[in-house]
Order: sequence, then C-alpha cells, then structure tokens
Amino acid sequence: MVQCSAHLDATFAALSDVTRRGVLEQLGDSHASISDLAQRFHMSLTGMKKHVSVLEQAGLVTTEKVGRVRTCKLGPRQLEEEAAWIESHRQLWSARFDALDQLVEQMKREEKVDVRTKRK
Amino acid sequence: MVQCSAHLDATFAALSDVTRRGVLEQLGDSHASISDLAQRFHMSLTGMKKHVSVLEQAGLVTTEKVGRVRTCKLGPRQLEEEAAWIESHRQLWSARFDALDQLVEQMKREEKVDVRTKRK
Repeated sequence: MVQCSAHLDATFAALSDVTRRGVLEQLGDSHASISDLAQRFHMSLTGMKKHVSVLEQAGLVTTEKVGRVRTCKLGPRQLEEEAAWIESHRQLWSARFDALDQLVEQMKREEKVDVRTKRK
Repeated sequence: MVQCSAHLDATFAALSDVTRRGVLEQLGDSHASISDLAQRFHMSLTGMKKHVSVLEQAGLVTTEKVGRVRTCKLGPRQLEEEAAWIESHRQLWSARFDALDQLVEQMKREEKVDVRTKRK
C-alpha cells in the first residue's frame, strides 16, 4: 500500500507539467532523443533532461544511451493504478452528490406537506 | 487549451500527495472541518490548511467558514479531463506496444524463412 502510494505520488507529480505530458504524447507517436525533444518543446537540453528524469523515475519513460545519443521511449507503466484511483473518486463524487440531491428532494416534499397542513 | 493545461497541472499536482488523496476519500464519505481532518491524518492545523488550500485551488474541495469552524466538502470538479487524458495515454501506450509486438512477430517470421532458405 505504501509502495502503491509512492507510485501514485510520483506519477501524478510527473503528470502535473504540460511539457512532461507533451513528451509522453510525443513518445506515444515515436521514440525520440533528448535533443529532439528539447528542440520540439523549445527548451534547453538541461531543462529537457530534468523533465525526462522525472518521467523516468515515475516509470513512464525509459532511456537508452547509444554513443552520444540518449533515446527516450514510453516506459512500462500503463497508468492503471492512476486510472483506478480517479475512477473510484468519480464514483464517490457521484454517490455524494446523488445523496445531496435526494436530501434536497426530500426537503422539498416535506415543505409542500408543511404548507398544505398550515393551509388547513 | 492553455486553461485546460493549467487545470490539469493543478489537479495532478494536488493528487500527487497521499494525504491530499486521503482527504478527498474522506470527504467522499462526509463533510469535515479542517481540525477533524488534521486530527484524522495526525497533522498540525497549519499543515492541513496548506493541503486543503492546494485542493481548493484545484477545484477539488470547497470550504465554508461558519463562526470559527471551516468546513470542507468535495468541490465541483469530477476529474473528467484527467480521466480523459489518462485514457488517451493508455490507448497510445497500447497502440505503440501492439505495433512493437507486430514488428517482433514479423522479424520472427522473416528469420524462419531465412533459416529455411539457408537450409535449402
């Protein structure tokens, strides 16, 4: 459970940046070197290396260095736990707001009964 | 699009902490004051206020102060965009790895043909 939490912490943190999400979308199309990515996202090599490192630590990207070129590709993690957490939150959210709706409906009905009783 | 990116940045950052995810799960069950939450998560009031503020800025929690008590409840955001982003990444991931599988299968077939040709 602690390990799972650490995974979720790292992945959600990795996803909290528009450039890092863009890098993942790019790698979904094709592998790319760090300098390709830096160029595409108008960023310094150092800046892109930091972003790739965050994604690599979260298991979302793997890199391989051949000669002077480090190539990045999508990592082994499919975001299953993240999708499950979000789905479970959405269900809780719906249940909570359905319960509130029911409460409001019940209050409306009680108010109607109350008004009728007062009229009599 | 920029607004959507800023939303995603803020939400994923808010979800990247186990305590903040715990607070959302708790508020899915029932409303709670900041001091209830601080007690439940063994945390100082100041620490919990900071977490709640991050969740509030991401639209995941709303708070209301009545007298001296600030009550927290689930906010209006249902994590629809976040669920959609993750789903789209998972589809890219699958497509990418399916393509790799096909490539490996094709290479295996070509190798078999090559071995047969050499035997002849």
